[in-house]
Amino acid sequence: MIPEFWRTRSIQRISGTPAAVAVVDQRLLPFVIQTVTLQSSGDAIAALQQMIVRGAPLIGVAGAYGIALAAQEAPNDQHFWGYLTERAEQLTNARPTAINLAWGVERMMKELRQHSANAGHADINQVVATAWLLADAIADEDAATCNSIGLHGLPLIQEISKRKNGGVVNILTHCNAGRLACVAWGTATAPIYHAHQAGIAVHVWVDETRPRNQGARLTTWELAEAGIPHTLIVDNAGGHLMQHGLVDIVLVGSDRTTRSGDVCNKIGTYLKALAAHDNGIPFYAALPSSTFDWEISDGVMQIPIEERAADEVRCIEGVVDGAVGQAQITLPDTPMIFPRKSQ
Amino acid sequence: MIPEFWRTRSIQRISGTPAAVAVVDQRLLPFVIQTVTLQSSGDAIAALQQMIVRGAPLIGVAGAYGIALAAQEAPNDQHFWGYLTERAEQLTNARPTAINLAWGVERMMKELRQHSANAGHADINQVVATAWLLADAIADEDAATCNSIGLHGLPLIQEISKRKNGGVVNILTHCNAGRLACVAWGTATAPIYHAHQAGIAVHVWVDETRPRNQGARLTTWELAEAGIPHTLIVDNAGGHLMQHGLVDIVLVGSDRTTRSGDVCNKIGTYLKALAAHDNGIPFYAALPSSTFDWEISDGVMQIPIEERAADEVRCIEGVVDGAVGQAQITLPDTPMIFPRKSQ
Repeated sequence: MIPEFWRTRSIQRISGTPAAVAVVDQRLLPFVIQTVTLQSSGDAIAALQQMIVRGAPLIGVAGAYGIALAAQEAPNDQHFWGYLTERAEQLTNARPTAINLAWGVERMMKELRQHSANAGHADINQVVATAWLLADAIADEDAATCNSIGLHGLPLIQEISKRKNGGVVNILTHCNAGRLACVAWGTATAPIYHAHQAGIAVHVWVDETRPRNQGARLTTWELAEAGIPHTLIVDNAGGHLMQHGLVDIVLVGSDRTTRSGDVCNKIGTYLKALAAHDNGIPFYAALPSSTFDWEISDGVMQIPIEERAADEVRCIEGVVDGAVGQAQITLPDTPMIFPRKSQ
Repeated sequence: MIPEFWRTRSIQRISGTPAAVAVVDQRLLPFVIQTVTLQSSGDAIAALQQMIVRGAPLIGVAGAYGIALAAQEAPNDQHFWGYLTERAEQLTNARPTAINLAWGVERMMKELRQHSANAGHADINQVVATAWLLADAIADEDAATCNSIGLHGLPLIQEISKRKNGGVVNILTHCNAGRLACVAWGTATAPIYHAHQAGIAVHVWVDETRPRNQGARLTTWELAEAGIPHTLIVDNAGGHLMQHGLVDIVLVGSDRTTRSGDVCNKIGTYLKALAAHDNGIPFYAALPSSTFDWEISDGVMQIPIEERAADEVRCIEGVVDGAVGQAQITLPDTPMIFPRKSQ
């Protein structure tokens, strides 16, 4: 069962006293759809650490809501700010490499402190109420940004549709730069949703995205929920489809963008960009300005490689005998590596 | 346990009366190593159909040995040639798309008929003995061809080794164009084996090769057996490694080569070729002349796409709870396709 809140948002405040935050557990998708209710900042920290929530924009928003939860549960006395500061640090450290998380938490703390100072040290109940409103605003901003990406991307798809006399526009995407990684719309998927809603015939080639299979697991699930025609392909297949005229446009996200415009995205994005170039197919990275890293200009040399655990390659998760389980696809001692770009 | 015959050959006649043929069951590798003894042409047909043996060159040799087995079991009377012709047809049809299989079977039949005619209708025992010798010769030829590919490819690796002052030569390969697909040496792997035996420090990046994971399952196993340093990577990673100077040369096989030199190989090969080109890295297809199709010149337009069963993408085989099993990596109704080039 798809939870009702998910129809509009990937993360949603549940009003009440105390308030809480609802998210979908992304670890088990698409095999199990399960809502997790975050009732404390401890729940938020755990959700971040365990990757119940994932995707850079969503992590930032989850961090912001974590601060609202911390404010709500904090002692209503002189220890309030001390408690909040401690929780802010713990939230930030829940996923050490995610820049958006630190951004969301810091923005909340800064604005709350400022708001409190402006109000001549407002009473704590007011700070708590403000924290919820601020977190909601951060979530809304993310939704608005992605919506805007959709509006900017829509004409690209419209134009192809016109050129094909209304024939199906075939879009290839890699990984999950979709709703699940954001609050709504997604980045790369936003123009696709907009086109679909505008009645344009679209079809999405979804790269499996080894080793973690975000395409096979998350993007296909999102598109199926939205009723958008799509086909899952192995990562090896995209170039071949392009050679045969079966791809009209490529839309991907960006984890980090340099000031010179180098896009750093999920491993394998580069190979699809080369194939698009070789076949004269337009290739777009759909990104919010928050992914720009103005400190660096060379995406290949200045963004270090993160090496992930070998088990991410060795073990594939799926349905095994009716339950979520793993298959080990190599011998246990096969040397392996999964280098990926990350900040 | 690695069977002794496999140390030198992937397929081997077992002398005796009657003679038989030993192969390794490739369906279960690398998790289970099991010798299968083909004692009749029926065993050979089953081994081909069930993909106990696979790889274009090996299939051709298995077809030739299938004819030797058929001759051995055929009635020693006027029905001999009728039986042999019937079995030849069944062997050829065991894998309808494998050009090498038809080639191996036809060559055997033609040479046996010719030999019999030259000998003034030789007695049947002599035809049977000739059949075994002919099949052995076809196997030897394949081994010699691959050995020769190794000798031609060795200088390419030697040169890089010299340029790096004896530093490790990093070779990237895709799929399994190795010993398991041939009688010995393999095609793409032959220069690697030769270099290793010549004392050159080599390291092989092995593409996983989704959806059937021939790299993860077969190539890693072969290289481990030979003591050649290697690392398994996901298919998405190769371009990134090239951008970071971690690949010195790419060596792949070829399923079919057009008269203009277009190489048609396992899905995903094209993406690695583009990345090699973009990074100025030498890229070679190691192939025997038998892969040339002189009838066609345009590899993209003239080689039709074979669509394989969706379950090849949906279900991944591996070790599940200590036994060989499968994980289903998507929802059962996710649309998917695995287009691959094939003749």
